This record gives sequence, structure tokens and C-alpha cells, in this order.
Amino acid sequence: MSRHSETVINVINPNMTVTMTELIAKAAQASASPTTRIVGRTARFGAASIEGHYDEAIAAVGMLREIEAGNAEGCHAHVIACFGDPGLLAARELSAVPVLGIAEAAMHAASFVATHFSVVTTLSRTKVIAEHLVRNYGMEQHCRKVRAVDVAVLDLDKPEANVRGTLLGECQAALREDGIGAIVLGCAGMADLAHDLSTELGIPVIDGVAAAVRFAEALVGLRLKTSKHGDLAFPLPKMRTTL
Amino acid sequence: MSRHSETVINVINPNMTVTMTELIAKAAQASASPTTRIVGRTARFGAASIEGHYDEAIAAVGMLREIEAGNAEGCHAHVIACFGDPGLLAARELSAVPVLGIAEAAMHAASFVATHFSVVTTLSRTKVIAEHLVRNYGMEQHCRKVRAVDVAVLDLDKPEANVRGTLLGECQAALREDGIGAIVLGCAGMADLAHDLSTELGIPVIDGVAAAVRFAEALVGLRLKTSKHGDLAFPLPKMRTTL
Amino acid sequence: MSRHSETVINVINPNMTVTMTELIAKAAQASASPTTRIVGRTARFGAASIEGHYDEAIAAVGMLREIEAGNAEGCHAHVIACFGDPGLLAARELSAVPVLGIAEAAMHAASFVATHFSVVTTLSRTKVIAEHLVRNYGMEQHCRKVRAVDVAVLDLDKPEANVRGTLLGECQAALREDGIGAIVLGCAGMADLAHDLSTELGIPVIDGVAAAVRFAEALVGLRLKTSKHGDLAFPLPKMRTTL
Amino acid sequence: MSRHSETVINVINPNMTVTMTELIAKAAQASASPTTRIVGRTARFGAASIEGHYDEAIAAVGMLREIEAGNAEGCHAHVIACFGDPGLLAARELSAVPVLGIAEAAMHAASFVATHFSVVTTLSRTKVIAEHLVRNYGMEQHCRKVRAVDVAVLDLDKPEANVRGTLLGECQAALREDGIGAIVLGCAGMADLAHDLSTELGIPVIDGVAAAVRFAEALVGLRLKTSKHGDLAFPLPKMRTTL
Amino acid sequence: MSRHSETVINVINPNMTVTMTELIAKAAQASASPTTRIVGRTARFGAASIEGHYDEAIAAVGMLREIEAGNAEGCHAHVIACFGDPGLLAARELSAVPVLGIAEAAMHAASFVATHFSVVTTLSRTKVIAEHLVRNYGMEQHCRKVRAVDVAVLDLDKPEANVRGTLLGECQAALREDGIGAIVLGCAGMADLAHDLSTELGIPVIDGVAAAVRFAEALVGLRLKTSKHGDLAFPLPKMRTTL
Amino acid sequence: MSRHSETVINVINPNMTVTMTELIAKAAQASASPTTRIVGRTARFGAASIEGHYDEAIAAVGMLREIEAGNAEGCHAHVIACFGDPGLLAARELSAVPVLGIAEAAMHAASFVATHFSVVTTLSRTKVIAEHLVRNYGMEQHCRKVRAVDVAVLDLDKPEANVRGTLLGECQAALREDGIGAIVLGCAGMADLAHDLSTELGIPVIDGVAAAVRFAEALVGLRLKTSKHGDLAFPLPKMRTTL
Repeated sequence: MSRHSETVINVINPNMTVTMTELIAKAAQASASPTTRIVGRTARFGAASIEGHYDEAIAAVGMLREIEAGNAEGCHAHVIACFGDPGLLAARELSAVPVLGIAEAAMHAASFVATHFSVVTTLSRTKVIAEHLVRNYGMEQHCRKVRAVDVAVLDLDKPEANVRGTLLGECQAALREDGIGAIVLGCAGMADLAHDLSTELGIPVIDGVAAAVRFAEALVGLRLKTSKHGDLAFPLPKMRTTL
Repeated sequence: MSRHSETVINVINPNMTVTMTELIAKAAQASASPTTRIVGRTARFGAASIEGHYDEAIAAVGMLREIEAGNAEGCHAHVIACFGDPGLLAARELSAVPVLGIAEAAMHAASFVATHFSVVTTLSRTKVIAEHLVRNYGMEQHCRKVRAVDVAVLDLDKPEANVRGTLLGECQAALREDGIGAIVLGCAGMADLAHDLSTELGIPVIDGVAAAVRFAEALVGLRLKTSKHGDLAFPLPKMRTTL
Repeated sequence: MSRHSETVINVINPNMTVTMTELIAKAAQASASPTTRIVGRTARFGAASIEGHYDEAIAAVGMLREIEAGNAEGCHAHVIACFGDPGLLAARELSAVPVLGIAEAAMHAASFVATHFSVVTTLSRTKVIAEHLVRNYGMEQHCRKVRAVDVAVLDLDKPEANVRGTLLGECQAALREDGIGAIVLGCAGMADLAHDLSTELGIPVIDGVAAAVRFAEALVGLRLKTSKHGDLAFPLPKMRTTL
Repeated sequence: MSRHSETVINVINPNMTVTMTELIAKAAQASASPTTRIVGRTARFGAASIEGHYDEAIAAVGMLREIEAGNAEGCHAHVIACFGDPGLLAARELSAVPVLGIAEAAMHAASFVATHFSVVTTLSRTKVIAEHLVRNYGMEQHCRKVRAVDVAVLDLDKPEANVRGTLLGECQAALREDGIGAIVLGCAGMADLAHDLSTELGIPVIDGVAAAVRFAEALVGLRLKTSKHGDLAFPLPKMRTTL
Repeated sequence: MSRHSETVINVINPNMTVTMTELIAKAAQASASPTTRIVGRTARFGAASIEGHYDEAIAAVGMLREIEAGNAEGCHAHVIACFGDPGLLAARELSAVPVLGIAEAAMHAASFVATHFSVVTTLSRTKVIAEHLVRNYGMEQHCRKVRAVDVAVLDLDKPEANVRGTLLGECQAALREDGIGAIVLGCAGMADLAHDLSTELGIPVIDGVAAAVRFAEALVGLRLKTSKHGDLAFPLPKMRTTL
Repeated sequence: MSRHSETVINVINPNMTVTMTELIAKAAQASASPTTRIVGRTARFGAASIEGHYDEAIAAVGMLREIEAGNAEGCHAHVIACFGDPGLLAARELSAVPVLGIAEAAMHAASFVATHFSVVTTLSRTKVIAEHLVRNYGMEQHCRKVRAVDVAVLDLDKPEANVRGTLLGECQAALREDGIGAIVLGCAGMADLAHDLSTELGIPVIDGVAAAVRFAEALVGLRLKTSKHGDLAFPLPKMRTTL
């Protein structure tokens, strides 16, 4: 699949909204090294947007199918482009190559450039999901607060939602109240806003899609692969259904 | 669905092996109050057994469909009968009635009768899953160790695996080395062995299926329902695929 | 003591106020299964109400005497009906049968029906006691906040304290500010208000007395007994004073 | 009670064994500053020795009575001389002057002279009590392990128990296996052995009685008193029984 | 260096401002036992004040030189008189005698007289340093909040900064909002204000310089020395540069 | 300093041993992208090797001077090439560009390709330093154990130390006993052994120098800079000494 010296990264949008995949893939390619080629994929099973535990559970299965597709085509790494990182460990189990979640990548990047950050996500009901990730990734001492702007994922690109203005206001509140040095954007659909917000706020504003792409390149460059020893070894052979 | 004063508990085997569902449902009914009726269900999507993150991810979707089936029939509570509690929060999102995972129920029960316990599960590769649950349920201070007997789930009922003997040996090692007062059995397929092992070892040996059934009855008796405020509110209406 | 197939639960009010025992026993019986008989007991040593570390320490001794009385009469389980769960581990040491504290039961029940809850207790000075329990029970990730209404325990039943209104206001504040899906009532003397508050607020409001009774029934039904191996083994024989 | 410039420290043996009080008081006086006078007191309610949760609960009440006696006589500080620190917060509630537990003092002292320590206590069944203190005092990152020599408290002074040899062996094992720089002795009855063991092992071996006495002197010298704001304010006036 | 029965404590001001050393040494001597002699030393390498990670790093080296000077003169203990405790473990490595940091001493003292405290420090940018110490010392469960008055260290003694009034206001806010029983002052330059603030507020207000001096005396009195086994053993011989 | 489109990374060896800098710089360049130029620098103040808290403290100052040198030359990022990450936050304070420590980078990389790893470092006395980093970086749930081979840093390249064989043995022990999927090498001086050990063991073996270089490239590619808001803002202007 890849030409010589080209790194191919399989960027999966776990929700089924193709316009969002396009936004994500475009942001991913814009953030990538010149020698990286982004392959954008959309889950073909799951939900139009991922805004809860149930959406995550069904989206994970759709996403995993695209992991398999990427593996079949010989991609060099995968990025799961939904801030809840649905199915991350399962995807690692399926893959010899590295897999990164965008929440994971964004939080780790934030911890490299600031001692504390806050997350700004979409709906209040998904704050719990981000908080669980904060704990699972050992980020409790870096993440001060998870905030929400209460805009639905599929409204992010609607002008009347005034997402940029709403996000900016919430980021400013975080800067004023949370004792932070950086912001993590809590949705793949905000990928195109990070640089602009960062310039306006004067602090790092981190989009997980870009961060995951660059960290995936780093792991590929390091020739580091997902460990196949222990719980991330390939799934045991057994009867399984397929979509 | 239920006759007057009968409590109906939907016990879902998230793996697709019907003989295991039968074992589980039988153990569940045997452990239940006389006024409880167990409805055993088998996931019709997923894997023959659940022994890794990938199996968990696909099993969750099959399990959730049976949650919906149970809700449609008007059951009073659900039990997810796989020790990894796959899809637990998603199942709660789908349900107005209580949902319990067997790992969750077993660990909580253990913490009520002993200050420390160890878990004995099937394969070493699944120990990480149990360890994650220990942390997610706040059981780090109660659970001393997760141990494995390295018998595959589908071999549990094979005489040549000598599961009872192997389990007994591992439990005895836990009793000798871990500073514990109780054992939690780490697989629904061990449900029928708990009482015998408990008698032999002289300490509580806890099967999660039984524990979850009884705690589900307790929640029903308390008229406690899954909170529909916040992250467990019913999923937002949107386009979703179905199996 | 018990008739055939009857479960006898020894519900101990660790404070010495008999009217409060009556309220508690009545709530306990109302919450119990039809086949459960509640025996209410009042500590005969200690304090009129338990509102601090000192009250807890002396109440524990009075409570333990009633544990012994219950054991002598052959009860099937004990409930310690004070939200600080005074003397819980000591009571387990004395008992072959299960012992539950109401704070413990309420918090565990809350974690089964919501991902986050807040506690609403009586006096501000006792918030520290509840916070210690939150940590001891591994509930830090579920409990958002401990709140107090600053009504003394023995004023709970005084009309002029307007307890229902005050509690409702604090619960509404919790619902608005804490990011929760359930409330835990932090005093046995609030047992009769849970269902009404739950209806008014539209979320689970959990009374520990009811929760402990039902979980005690569950443990009895599971034939689970307090482990007598390790730190909960019966006390070593030695000279001790008695009250 | 005290002569000019004399500091009076009330050292309470929470168990009822007078010979042990004598050993403790002697060690306390030997460890104290020349201007400190130790008043040794023995609990008159409770147990001959404290080796479990139940012993702790009843001993706390006996101990608290001696706190009141010390306060009545105008002592400048209290030391609770049992490694479980029974009733510590209750004692602080009763006292305007400082109160120290010997486990607390020993662990804090150990953290001042080594980055990691292990505790060596008497019976295995009491290890859980020490582990709870480690967590309550925030010492998880300093305490590597709680070990026991399985000698009963009242056998500590019996030549046939060979306590010094047994302790030395366990300390040597800790030094070899635990990655530590200091040992904390886990029983007031070991107070007279600390210096000798320290010399033999070449590392700090810390007796809590001595540590608590010296820290109590330090707090007195600092004119620091127990906070009477919040949960340690004097108990609210109400009906209470007395021994 | 020391006369018979005199304890000599080497109190090092890690910043290079001699007037501050004088204030610290005076406060230290005033807080010390009559038989203690304070030797005040000023770092001769580093920064005029310590208000950030960089200041801490360079100050540590200047401070360590004064540790060596104190060791050469035979002092009995060291105190590092800067609230960030810069170089604490390195200083312990260099010393056979005890070394205490003032943040460490103040927080431990606070935990002896109150269940919860807040820290009030100088600049907001140094709050992170105090928060790291809170975690390193296991004080998360005791410390409610780190607050800052946003007065620079070297402005503390300027009348126009109105430090006493500003501190008092912040302490009152802490008392009102944080659920605390004591205050820890977060800068050595506040040493002279503790008693006055304590009187005004009616709760313990703890200055780390005084606390560290008294705890150092306690360790000397206990004949406890820094462990020379493990990571605090004297540095290995090798080529090193000197200032 | 940099040619168009070239990324310049300042790789600082905080110890003063030039041969080790050469090994590190060579490994760094070999691991870097083709468009990255590594500038290797050696601390000119500090110690020949860093094997304790004291070495770390003095090395930090020498390292920081090379941070300033790199900043003056306009490098795009810094790597601190000593496994203790000495002076990391101070270096971030001095720099607008990203700064990475090799322990930090290695542990984060390990958490991307395995759920659990162990660290294998040089001397046992430095294990505490690595353990502190594990906690500071939130890696407690990923890092199973810190192990040491007890070879001094400056002996790593001596044939008679048989470092490769010794490391291999320790890694094999980790693989057998620790329940891990990856190894983190705990010294910059092991940089050249990672690939060979990885091949031999069949699991990822991670060298922090390479990981830090690639993550630094990633941050540069993301145009992420060290936050200058809060505790990482440039140091306040004041009198400071210079080496």
C-alpha cells in the first residue's frame, strides 16, 4: 500500500458521519509530516456521533473493523479519532503496528508542555467519559478539570452554534479559574480550531488528532510496535461473529 | 412479562456459548430468592468466549442487544454474566432498571465479608482486565492479587482440565501468600464451584453470578433504578446501526 | 430465635435515643423482604446522638454489646444504623454472620445506579467522618462531594427544623453543581425521607438503612458469612472488661 | 500539676496490663528531654492487650477516659501508646493540647530519616490495622511492607519468646528484601529494643513511644494546640454515658 | 563546634538575601529550645529569592554547599528554610545527621493538630511547587487547598505590601471556604507572622521554620540519624565539580 | 543555526563524561528523522555520572546552562538525556521550545505499546529516583517494577561488565515475573542496546534517548511550545549567580 519511505497512518473516525471524517482527515494530513500519508476511514457500524457510553460501545465495533481494514492494507499505524478513545486496547490487540487514541495523545502532549491542563469537550453528559480517561491514563495530577460547552458533536460545524466563540469563552474561563497552562480540546470535530484558539489565548491548545498523528509517526520512526506479549497479544483463535 | 410479585432478572451471557448460558442460568436460579425468575440469554453477536480486550469489545455489542430484549420484555433488572463486566455503563444507559456486572457484584460482596480478597481467573492474559476493574471499582485497598489458573474458558467444563483441583490449588496458594480472607472467582463459568471450594477452604469463595442476582434483587426491593440524570440518561436520539 | 425460612436482621441504633431506633426499625422493616424480621436495638452505652469522633468512639462500644446480643439470639445478619459505620470491623470480628454499615451499603448501592453521587449529611463537623468513609470504601471516584445541612441529629424530627425543605434545597444544589446522578442521605434519621425526595428530585436518593437491610438479606441468601480467616477471625481469648 | 518550665506528657497505655505501662513509661521518660515529666496511665476499661479491631474499639474508650484524666490534671500533651493509635481523633476532640499516636509519630519520624521503611509488628492478624494507618497517614509511598513476627503482645517480655532474636531476623529480612532504609517497630511493648536493634542493623529502628514523646515536646515548644475549629472542636454538649 | 549538651542546628536560607536569613535565624532561635543554638547560613550561589522551578534548581546547589559547611562544623541537624524544600533528598544524602525541610515540617505538624489544612504561599506561580510537595509528602488527604497572596518574596517585609493584612484576608477566606482547622504559611519569610495570625484567627497557623527546628531537636533527642542504607547513603566517590 | 526545514534538537548529557555524550548523540542522531540535526552537549558542571539525589541536584545546574546555550543558538527542542530527568521543570521554565526528559519519553512511549512495563536501571540506589518519576508521571498503573543490574553508569561500556548479558538476564526475569509487555531501559548509556535486546526478547525495549528525540520532533511538528502561562513562564527577573 505504501510507497517507499512513506508512512501510512490509518485515521479512523469511529462515528459514521462522513463529513466529519473529511474534516478529521484533512486536519490529520495538514498536521502530518510531508512523508506521511493519511488514510481516513469512517466506521460503517455504530452511531452518527459518539456522546455516551452506549455510542462508545457500538462505535468500538465499527472502529475495530476499520482497524482490520488498515492492517490488511499494511498501514504503519492507527489513530482512533474520537476523544473517548473507544476500543483502544482491543485495537492494540488486533494490531502489530502502533495504535493511538486522540484523547491519550492530547493529554500526553499537554503534560509535555504544561504542568496542568483542562479539557474542553462537547456535551456535559460526556464529561464522565473524559474523566475516566484522565484516571486511566494517570493524568489526575495534570488535568485540573473537564469542561463542556454543551454543543452536540454534529452541531460543531453549524454557524448558528458559534462554536469558536463558545469554545473561546470556556477556554478563557479555564484559564482564569483552573490554574492551567494548556487546553486539551475534547472532540475530534474541533481539530480545525486548535491553532486559532491557541493564538487567541496565548497558551497551547491541543487537538488530539494532530497529536496522535505526530506521536504515531514518532513510534513508527522508533520502530516500536505494539507488544504481542501478554494482554495485547493477537486474539486467541475461536469462533467469532463478524459484522 | 412477570406474574404478580415475581422479580424477573435478565441474566445475559455475553459470550455465544449456549451450554455456558445454561450453566450460568442454572446457577443464577439456584442462588436466587424463591420469588425471582431468571431469564437466561445468550449474546448472538461476539465471541464463543471472552478472553481479551477484543472479545470484550465485540461481546459488549451482542450483550447490549440482549439488554434491549430484556427491557422490551419488562424485566426488573439485568446481570452481565462475564467477569470483565463488558459494556456495563452502556447497559445502564439503555436501562431504567438496575444493571449489575458479576465482577462488580463479587468484589463488593467480598469487601462486605473480608477486608482483603484475591481474584482467581482463567487465563493470565485476562488478568489485566480484572486489574482494571479492581481500579475502576475502587477495590485497590481490598484486592490483594489477581491470579490465573491458565485454563481457557471453554475448557472449564472438560474433565481433563481438572478445574476444581487446579482452582483449589490456586486458592490455597492465595490463602497462604496473599493475606486474604476471601476469594473471588474470576469467571462466570466457575459459578457452580463456589460453594464446594468455600467448604474445602474454610473461607468465603464468591461467585459473581450469584452475588449479582442477589444484589439485583436487593436493588429491585429498594425500588432503586438506574439514574437517568447525567451520563446514564437514555442515549440521545440519533442515527445508529443495528445488528 | 427465627422461625423457619425467616431471616432475622439485627438493626442497631448506635445512639441511645429510643425514638430514633423506632424510626429506624420501622424504616428497616418497611424496606425489608416479607420474610425478613427486623429486630431493632438501641445502644445502652454511648451518646444521645453521634456527631463527632468522640461520639463515634463511645458509641462503638455500646453498639458492639448489641452485636453480641444479636449473635446470642441467633440473628442472621447485623446492620449498624449510623452513617459513620462506627465499630464496623470490630463488629465483623465478633460475628460469624454478615455485618453491614449503612454508609457502606448506601455508597455501594449508589455506585450501582449512578456513576457519581454526593452525600448530604447533618452537621458540617461530621463531613470529615463521611469523607474518611468515602476513602476507606474506595468511593473517591464515585463521590463528588459531602454536603451538610447543619441540622443536629436530634432536631431532624422537629417540625421547626424543616428538615425536608432544607434537605431538598441541599439536594437540588448538589444536582445543579456536583455533576451527580444520585444522592446518599448521610444520617439514619433521614431514612423516612428518601422515597419522597427521590420522587421530587427525579433521581435515586438512597437511605442507608434500607440499603443495608436489603444487602444483608442478599448476603444471607448467598450463604456468605464474615470470613473468620485473618483480621476478622474471632477475637483472641484474653482478659477484657465488660460494660 | 506541673512545676515551672516542666512539660508534662500524659502517656497512656490503652491496654490494661500495668507491667506494660511501666515498661512504656520508663522508655518514654528515658527518651524525653530533661525538662519533661512523663505521667504513665493505664486504661481501666478494655483488654489486656490489643490485637484486633475489637480490642481497639473497646480500648479506645478506656484510653479516652485517661485523656480526660490528663486534661483534668493540666498535662501539656498526650501520647497514645499502642501502635494502632486507637481513638486518636476522638482524643484530639477532647483535648486542647496536642495528642500523638505512636504509629503516627514513628511513621512520620521514619519518613524524615529514610525514603522507605517497613513496619515489624506482633501478630499477623494485626497487620491490617497497621496497613490502614499507613494509608490514613499518607505513608503509602514511604512504607514498603508491614511484617509480623507472630509473637503475642503479652509474650513480648517472655524470655522463651526470644523476641529480640525473632525481631532481628525479621528486620534483617526487611533490610534484604524490601528496599528500605529504616524500620518502624509496630508495638509499644518493643520500645526498649529499638536502640539495640538499630546498632545491630546499622539503620534507624524507630520506636513510636520515644518518637511521640519527642514530637509532643516539639508541639508544646511550638505552642501549637489541637485545632478547635471544625471536626476537632470539643464534643457538642449532649447526654452521654460514662464508664 | 558545640558546647556540651548544646544542640547546634544549621538553618540554611537557600536564597541569597542576607536580610531574610537574619529574619529566619531570629525566628528559628526564638522558636528553639533554650539548649539549641541556631547557626544561620545564606546560600552563596543561586537566586535572590526562590519563586519557580528554575530558582529552586540553582538554589539547591547553593544550599547543598551550606549543608557541607554545616557538616564540616559538626552541627547536629539541618533545616532547609525555603518552603519548596529544594534539594532535600540530596541534603540527606550528604548528611549523617537529620535534615528537615520547612514545608515538610509544617505540613506534618499541621496534620498532628488538625485533620485538614490549607497552605497560603506568596506567588500564584509557586502554588504548583507546593502542590507537588503535598503529593510527595502524602498530604493529599490533609491539605485542602494551596492559596497565594501574590506578594513577591522580597516584598514580604515592605510596609506598602501590607503582608499581614493580605495574609489575614486569605487565611480568613480559607477558614470560610476550605473546611480546614489549620493554616500552613508557605514561605520562610512569613515566619514572624505565625503567632499573631494564629491569635487573630483562633486556629493554629504554622510556620515551617519553627516546626522544622523543633522537629530537628526531636530527632536529635531521639538519636535518630539519616539512614545511610540505600538511596540516602553518602554519594559514591567520583569526579565532581565544585562551586 | 538551523538550515531551512531542518529541526535542531539540543540533546544534553547532564553528566560530564564526554564519551557518554558521544554515545548518546550518536544514538540520538541514528534514531532521528532525516531532517533532524542533533546537537550533543555535555554538562560542564556537576558529576561524572549521576547515581543519586546529590548527583542529580548538581547535574541539574550544569544541564540548565546547556539549555540556555541551546536556546541562545535557536534550537527547536531540548532533550535531557539522563534517566532521572534532572531539572526538567526548570528547563521548561527557561525555554519557549519543548523540553523532554528521557525517562518521561520512554515511559510514555511504553504506555502506548504495552499496558504494563518494567524499568531496568543501573544501580539499586537509583531505583528510588525512577520510582519517584513513575509516580510523578502518573505511571503507577503501567509500571510494574523498577529493577537494577547493579552496574555503575561509567562501567556500562566496559567489556568485563558484560552489560548486554546482565541486562538481558534482568529483562528476562522481568518478562517471566512481572506481567509486562515492554521494558524501559533506565539509563541513557544503554541507548545502543535497545534494538538488540528487543529482538532477542521479542518485546518492545525502549530507549529514552530515541523516544525523547522522536517525541520532540512530534511536538515541533505540532508547533506546540512550552506554555509560558503559569509555573512554566520565564523566570522572574532578579539577581541570580551564574556558574
